[in-house]
Amino acid sequence: MKGACIVGQSGGPTSVINSSVAGVVLSALKNENITEVYGALNGLAGIINENIIDFKKEDIEEIELLKYTPSAALGSVRLFLDDYTVNSDIHQKILNVFKKYNIRYFFYIGGNDSMDSCHKINEYLKSQDYECRVIGIPKTIDNDLVCCDHTPGYGSACKFIATTISEIYLDINAYTKGRVTIVEVMGRDAGWLTASSKLASLNGCDPDLIYLPEMAFNIEEFLDKVNNIYTKNKKAFIIVSEGIKDANGEYILKYRNFNNNDSFGHMQLGGVASVLCQIVSNKFGFPVRAIELNLPQRCASHLSSKTDIDEAYICGEKGVEFATTGVTGKMITIERNNNIFTYGTTDLKNVAAQVKNVPLNFISENKDNITQEYIDYALPLIQGEPNITYVNGLPKFAKLKKVLINKK
Amino acid sequence: MKGACIVGQSGGPTSVINSSVAGVVLSALKNENITEVYGALNGLAGIINENIIDFKKEDIEEIELLKYTPSAALGSVRLFLDDYTVNSDIHQKILNVFKKYNIRYFFYIGGNDSMDSCHKINEYLKSQDYECRVIGIPKTIDNDLVCCDHTPGYGSACKFIATTISEIYLDINAYTKGRVTIVEVMGRDAGWLTASSKLASLNGCDPDLIYLPEMAFNIEEFLDKVNNIYTKNKKAFIIVSEGIKDANGEYILKYRNFNNNDSFGHMQLGGVASVLCQIVSNKFGFPVRAIELNLPQRCASHLSSKTDIDEAYICGEKGVEFATTGVTGKMITIERNNNIFTYGTTDLKNVAAQVKNVPLNFISENKDNITQEYIDYALPLIQGEPNITYVNGLPKFAKLKKVLINKK
Repeated sequence: MKGACIVGQSGGPTSVINSSVAGVVLSALKNENITEVYGALNGLAGIINENIIDFKKEDIEEIELLKYTPSAALGSVRLFLDDYTVNSDIHQKILNVFKKYNIRYFFYIGGNDSMDSCHKINEYLKSQDYECRVIGIPKTIDNDLVCCDHTPGYGSACKFIATTISEIYLDINAYTKGRVTIVEVMGRDAGWLTASSKLASLNGCDPDLIYLPEMAFNIEEFLDKVNNIYTKNKKAFIIVSEGIKDANGEYILKYRNFNNNDSFGHMQLGGVASVLCQIVSNKFGFPVRAIELNLPQRCASHLSSKTDIDEAYICGEKGVEFATTGVTGKMITIERNNNIFTYGTTDLKNVAAQVKNVPLNFISENKDNITQEYIDYALPLIQGEPNITYVNGLPKFAKLKKVLINKK
Repeated sequence: MKGACIVGQSGGPTSVINSSVAGVVLSALKNENITEVYGALNGLAGIINENIIDFKKEDIEEIELLKYTPSAALGSVRLFLDDYTVNSDIHQKILNVFKKYNIRYFFYIGGNDSMDSCHKINEYLKSQDYECRVIGIPKTIDNDLVCCDHTPGYGSACKFIATTISEIYLDINAYTKGRVTIVEVMGRDAGWLTASSKLASLNGCDPDLIYLPEMAFNIEEFLDKVNNIYTKNKKAFIIVSEGIKDANGEYILKYRNFNNNDSFGHMQLGGVASVLCQIVSNKFGFPVRAIELNLPQRCASHLSSKTDIDEAYICGEKGVEFATTGVTGKMITIERNNNIFTYGTTDLKNVAAQVKNVPLNFISENKDNITQEYIDYALPLIQGEPNITYVNGLPKFAKLKKVLINKK
């Protein structure tokens, strides 16, 4: 089937989400079935509003640079669809634009919510007998997509976290007497990112305690352990997931308002690391420091994993390959067999709105550390360093012209 | 004069403080006047307690790796001396150890407080007619040492900050509607580090507002500007120094306790960025995000400036060169002439306990941004990327054996 293709990005950015765009675009430009290569600005919103750019107007060099450019170069969106049988307003608009520009290939790069949207669009297009190949390209630093060994974006986040944890470890060990340092890592529901702090042990920089949201967090046990470690070593190094919860499933973050009657009680003043530091300080009087790794976890592309960049790119390429050979309604997957990685597909509906948690064999028995099995799992994902071009001492990022197709 | 040398590290670690150790040690090992090359563990504390290592027992390869290893490999200390005429207890202990091991060259790597200690030791040794060459090697990410164009450690911190600010800028621009993002940068008294965020403008990632402690911060003006920027752009990107103060010289951080009657009122719950986010949110209801760059500013050696690593190394080399040709009581300086950098010396007492602020021509007239003059000043300092060795996907750090000289 001949026709135009369109690629869009959705959900939280990652260090390598643009590498998947590069994979789609550079493959599509060479594919004889694809007549035009379009990009939707801000995902589905760009399709609806016809904010669509023409990749044939871009320099190949800049498209190549997308591999090393963080964040969503096309812009992202958080717009999620109803099932078309409930409300098909947005679906209809999308179909109208697809018809107008003869778009027959739709590549959407995103996480589980985006795959859900993708699935719903595919169902609607089928119901309207509009022939279009809909392919999801996985991305999320959270690594929580089911049916996939791991997701593009995760490896780079791991490499950033493990390196940064190593560097912080060395820093806080410069003094004989230190603090209780608590580092907060992203991950509301799944502890994949927090687990990657364990990779710092390969550098001799092993944290004392690592807490994931998969295991109930007991504040009294935590305080006992911190007390023992600090009393012995005069410092403690603890990594926590932002989403750790107590046995009742309540976020530890909520403990901030314990006994807190201030007028800002509703406000977010630091995260769970700050709250735990406060509790430790109140209880023992130990000096404390909270560190939130924050956005660099998903945008520090200067420290990407080359493996991850390459995989994100190949997922884009494979999307084009599968779509132009007749596949639709699928997400590209990465599979592992004896640490050999291959690419396949799974139905979009298998992935939609599901969450993959860290398995129990990756978490130590006493729930406060990470096992060798996890290290074996994650280590291949952080291998290799990209050859980044620096200009003026700063990484060079892609600059797209973004010529709109309807502004001629 | 023939004799042993000892090198120590003091004050807050930096990404390149170990490069200065490498410069001292590798030069000293080749110098015919230097009989032994010792390292003091945890600075002056290591001398007093005879926790002294023998660099002749270390592999040259590991000493070379110090160039790319963050934090203080010998351990640091915050121990500052009285004038010997007031209290010479510590000075005497140091002299005894120097005599015991025939230490005739003392290299101390640190900031202004450490140079003060250095100066006091030098004065005491002179008063006791003990011949010893005392040389300070400058280091501080804060760039606040007088008599020096810039300090080793600053360029790497600038490169880290400017790169990270660029990456965050791209991330927060992925959505059409964003938040008020406030990034907090280190610097209690001087705004040098915060100013370096302006270098991100060279990457097309210019922050909207940049506030330094050198200029009084007016909260009402700030809120007006944020309101205008957010209303126009649906996002705002603001960089603040942790040390910004109001017209009365009060830290803005203290505003956290305004109207705050909670039982944790005395606790540190996030920094000034959090406080400002809270105030913006309370006033306008805009979505906000506080980001504290935190320790990676001084330890993210994977993103060091090669220029900075080299300069830190040369400062160590020059220390040995000057000392063995008779200089004492001096700190090594870096001087600039038409962007050509040369090395000199200044009296330790000129540097001791002084602070160099950001000059007014580096700050924009309306006190909320940084000028081209600053960019011209700072740009040479962030040039070049070190060739870092990665093992297991992580940067390789030096591992010293640390063989103690009195444990034979």
